[in-house]
Amino acid sequence: MRDAYVIGAGGSQYGAFPTESYRSMFRTAFESTTASVDNGIDAGDIDEAFIGMISIGGRQLGLSGPAVTEHVGLHGVPTTRLENACAASGYAVRQAVQAVRSGMADVVLAGGVEMMTDLSSDTTRYWFGVSGETEWERMAGTTFSGVYAQIASAHMAEYGTEREQLSKIAVKSHANGALNPDAHLGFECSLEQAEGAGVVADPLTLYHCCPTSDGAAAVLVASEDVVEQYTDTPVRIAGVGAASDGVGLFQRDSYTSLPATKQAAETAYEMAGVGPEDVDFAEVHDCFSIAEILAYEDLGFCEPGEGGQLIEDGVTTLEGDLPVNTSGGLKSKGHPIGATGAGQVYEAFKQLRGDAGDRQVEGAQVGLTHNVGGSGGAAVVHVLEGPEVDA
Amino acid sequence: MRDAYVIGAGGSQYGAFPTESYRSMFRTAFESTTASVDNGIDAGDIDEAFIGMISIGGRQLGLSGPAVTEHVGLHGVPTTRLENACAASGYAVRQAVQAVRSGMADVVLAGGVEMMTDLSSDTTRYWFGVSGETEWERMAGTTFSGVYAQIASAHMAEYGTEREQLSKIAVKSHANGALNPDAHLGFECSLEQAEGAGVVADPLTLYHCCPTSDGAAAVLVASEDVVEQYTDTPVRIAGVGAASDGVGLFQRDSYTSLPATKQAAETAYEMAGVGPEDVDFAEVHDCFSIAEILAYEDLGFCEPGEGGQLIEDGVTTLEGDLPVNTSGGLKSKGHPIGATGAGQVYEAFKQLRGDAGDRQVEGAQVGLTHNVGGSGGAAVVHVLEGPEVDA
Repeated sequence: MRDAYVIGAGGSQYGAFPTESYRSMFRTAFESTTASVDNGIDAGDIDEAFIGMISIGGRQLGLSGPAVTEHVGLHGVPTTRLENACAASGYAVRQAVQAVRSGMADVVLAGGVEMMTDLSSDTTRYWFGVSGETEWERMAGTTFSGVYAQIASAHMAEYGTEREQLSKIAVKSHANGALNPDAHLGFECSLEQAEGAGVVADPLTLYHCCPTSDGAAAVLVASEDVVEQYTDTPVRIAGVGAASDGVGLFQRDSYTSLPATKQAAETAYEMAGVGPEDVDFAEVHDCFSIAEILAYEDLGFCEPGEGGQLIEDGVTTLEGDLPVNTSGGLKSKGHPIGATGAGQVYEAFKQLRGDAGDRQVEGAQVGLTHNVGGSGGAAVVHVLEGPEVDA
Repeated sequence: MRDAYVIGAGGSQYGAFPTESYRSMFRTAFESTTASVDNGIDAGDIDEAFIGMISIGGRQLGLSGPAVTEHVGLHGVPTTRLENACAASGYAVRQAVQAVRSGMADVVLAGGVEMMTDLSSDTTRYWFGVSGETEWERMAGTTFSGVYAQIASAHMAEYGTEREQLSKIAVKSHANGALNPDAHLGFECSLEQAEGAGVVADPLTLYHCCPTSDGAAAVLVASEDVVEQYTDTPVRIAGVGAASDGVGLFQRDSYTSLPATKQAAETAYEMAGVGPEDVDFAEVHDCFSIAEILAYEDLGFCEPGEGGQLIEDGVTTLEGDLPVNTSGGLKSKGHPIGATGAGQVYEAFKQLRGDAGDRQVEGAQVGLTHNVGGSGGAAVVHVLEGPEVDA
């Protein structure tokens, strides 16, 4: 089967943009993506498109994929909207890999968009909430913050993880995000601020929770047969993995691990022929700071229960051995649901090509992205290799 | 790239089922599908799942793919919900083909479900409406029936197509649906009834419009490497094609043809190495009777403008040379949006294996399915070959 490469990636700024539409937002990401292709690319070269989006309340529910792609000039191109809650565009990138490997497409657009701050439809905010388990969690009054608070409490009880460690994750995320001009909350925060902020769902404070953002991101994936037309410095998608799980927490054996992440990572590592020890940096799904600790453990960056120590030791800071969420992560860069997974690959693309500016990880050659839907009902992992690995 | 085969297909009855949920409905389709696999299949054999669904108002919006598959026992399997309005599960079947051809999966579940008669969420009916073009059609007061009424009026003006020809399509659909125990409206209708029914949107009467239905359908697609484990009578997916188009009618050059259908069909025919003259029967997207006439023309079953004559001549009746919508089609079998595309493949599977009972097309060896999203913003076509073609 043919190898797949990222030849371009881009995104909009994340934030609150009341004067933008989902179409204009995605167009910004698309133009940033095509502009990043070294030798340029015509819209007519794109054979297929996958758009991640959970909902665009009050606007377009059906055919929202073609509604987005027609606005960027992709006429006639097979276009599909994918939904896997917050993992929508991580799955879109994976579908692009399948399309390329299938031989049915040579160049595929994978991206996503979400306009979360537009509450013009009175049900919009409600809809985002029902991306978790509806019948037994949401209708019983449990919010997303509540679900992750339960996860945090369980992790603290089982492993002695401390709230201050969650706060250190937040401090790191904001330190990185302050270096990212596209970040929604691109300011630093102190440990005292993170610790002292209002409690959203005990033990999680405001700084342990990501914001709701508007934003879009996109990636262009090309087959090995055409990649050289577009760039001499492609980023190889060496491994992809995905898995689902029971949507509700109550269906899991444990609250302190996401089996979907583990399974997705195993598949991606195996396909790439690498292990967690080979990863130079990672973008992981930190919708809540405790989720980043789970990711450290489930991705194999440390043993179960040792995630808190990893941040204590500074391993995952920008200066550490394994920088995590150099973009600022969901916490500081922001979390426009449908855009997040593609946005992670965008950050990895920049890192692997040495284009990450003040937040560049020196010598980055192998990057990992990790995107979760709901509280672990879906997960998708990509292992990406920089041009020098391939050379 | 590896060939893909349908090894099993099934569906629920279509209709109004107030005591069922989207999960139980899909489970019925899933069990019917696995039961159709000659040598049996374990849920554990399934590597990937694609679920077509537009919305399940008031229930699960995000992660609705995994919410469905967990209920049928697919644990851990990568599962993605696809949306392309009424073409959702036609695209799901196409994604299954990509997954198989990519080498990333050997057995893939593709299906769909919709519960359209449950209006427990006050916005549900509204949401289905915004599957057409929202900003310039729906918000200007144009319904789906209104859009297709404009198409019908244009076809009549350009080609002299008559309303009685639309009625003859409806009579044929109901004659076939009366032979299908799974049909929502499984009764015959006379030409007088179709002509005399109340006008929904001039020139379309009630009998020129499909119903809104609850229902589910599914297909199991396997790679050439494993197909023999499951059946000696597989149905080969010889060709697949898909295309998008401007979502709104006002963006098209013509009202009397769907370019997305034409492009999807060209791709599918080319991949299969066949032409419209080789097709023994077809399931086409007759959301309104005029849409079936457009399909005749866009799929190449006749020249542009001659679709009305095709039904006049009886060519597309069960006894004709090219039976169309032997299942009853969307008009009589029903149209549970997310289920429709997979349901069409289910009918083709039965026809090609000689299992279609009273509505069997004698000697059927090549079948075509045609699924449209919105009023032509998306289309997907499959060319399927029976076991004897392969032998």
